[in-house]
Amino acid sequence: MAITLYDLAGAEADRRFSPFCWRTRMALAHKELAVETVPWRFTEKDEIAFSGQGRVPVIRDGDRVVSDSTVIADYLEEHYPDRPSLFGGEAGQALGRFVANWTETVVHPGLFRFVVLDIFRHVAPQDREYFRRSREERLGTTLEAYVADRESRLPAFRDSLAPLRRTVERQPFLGGNAPFYADYIVFGAFQWARSISDFELLAADDPVAAWRGRLLDRFGGLARQNRAYGG
Amino acid sequence: MAITLYDLAGAEADRRFSPFCWRTRMALAHKELAVETVPWRFTEKDEIAFSGQGRVPVIRDGDRVVSDSTVIADYLEEHYPDRPSLFGGEAGQALGRFVANWTETVVHPGLFRFVVLDIFRHVAPQDREYFRRSREERLGTTLEAYVADRESRLPAFRDSLAPLRRTVERQPFLGGNAPFYADYIVFGAFQWARSISDFELLAADDPVAAWRGRLLDRFGGLARQNRAYGG
Repeated sequence: MAITLYDLAGAEADRRFSPFCWRTRMALAHKELAVETVPWRFTEKDEIAFSGQGRVPVIRDGDRVVSDSTVIADYLEEHYPDRPSLFGGEAGQALGRFVANWTETVVHPGLFRFVVLDIFRHVAPQDREYFRRSREERLGTTLEAYVADRESRLPAFRDSLAPLRRTVERQPFLGGNAPFYADYIVFGAFQWARSISDFELLAADDPVAAWRGRLLDRFGGLARQNRAYGG
Repeated sequence: MAITLYDLAGAEADRRFSPFCWRTRMALAHKELAVETVPWRFTEKDEIAFSGQGRVPVIRDGDRVVSDSTVIADYLEEHYPDRPSLFGGEAGQALGRFVANWTETVVHPGLFRFVVLDIFRHVAPQDREYFRRSREERLGTTLEAYVADRESRLPAFRDSLAPLRRTVERQPFLGGNAPFYADYIVFGAFQWARSISDFELLAADDPVAAWRGRLLDRFGGLARQNRAYGG
């Protein structure tokens, strides 16, 4: 029986743009597990109330319910040990936490200042008021003011990717010759941006763009087939 | 027979302050390999000419000579497979490259602007002119100007450690419950600073300071016994 994934969607049901849901989507594919995704919107808290919390990703695997992308990855590794490993061992799993923390303190905040207004433009009509209000409360300003003059921040953002760039110009993936969950953690951030914004984050000749392309191609082009902008 | 390590030293022969040599020193201890260190100064290029290049760390292991901390770590892992693993597998090794690239693009440049003048004050007399000239050429300014007003940069530097902080407040080491080579990569940077500067980089209650303390205690307090400042 396929695993069910509650997956953040935009106004169009096939625009899936949560960085955390993309981690889970790639992890399920890596584990060669069948999945049925359920498009979910920010305000549909009741739809996932069975999980005991209000955010996605949430998976239902038979009678088991798991939420939080990190917990889901650990669950999949433990419950499907005969499938390809997501971490390549305990050290890989532990170091993946560092990659996650780098992604969430450097990449996500950087991207957010480029694309938050684009997210607003793509969320479902019933989510728009909720999205604007909750984000503007957190940011202390309007979405428009927050992304203003975004081109001027692009060089610093690209510089902030130096650790990733230096790594993937010397090896195909963060995990080495093949991707591991750490790759999907960072990739989820770029897939988030790519799904809802046409803003060119990466120079065409950036090794980060080449690495992203390798992950877009993975699993028969799973991530490339998502409704999105750009290359 | 013990492995010989050519190890950067200051005016006092027991002040060892190279971040890259500290990686190797900790890696040798992790592998439970006996080591004899040879204090080496920047201008003693002739002393390591046998290695075919002019920088430390260099190790001599019987009739084998290996230079470059990354190459040395890979060499130790390959040639001493029965000793405790430095990487915990290929994924751990690959992800360690990311940690190294983060360290070298974020932590090292940040630290350099705090401590470069302190380094100058601690290098051997014969190294002082070389050190000042080569660094000022690279920096395009005097050492004094480069570190001026360093207190004002401290908050941003501490913020830049967020990926490390978030990780080691949730697990004892980057490598998980025990340290791996990735820990020594980052630790080498702090050991560098600690060896030549009394500038307080970390707040006393910073989880990064606690993690550093755990590594200072490792191997019978190997790193703590080095001539250094502070805790």
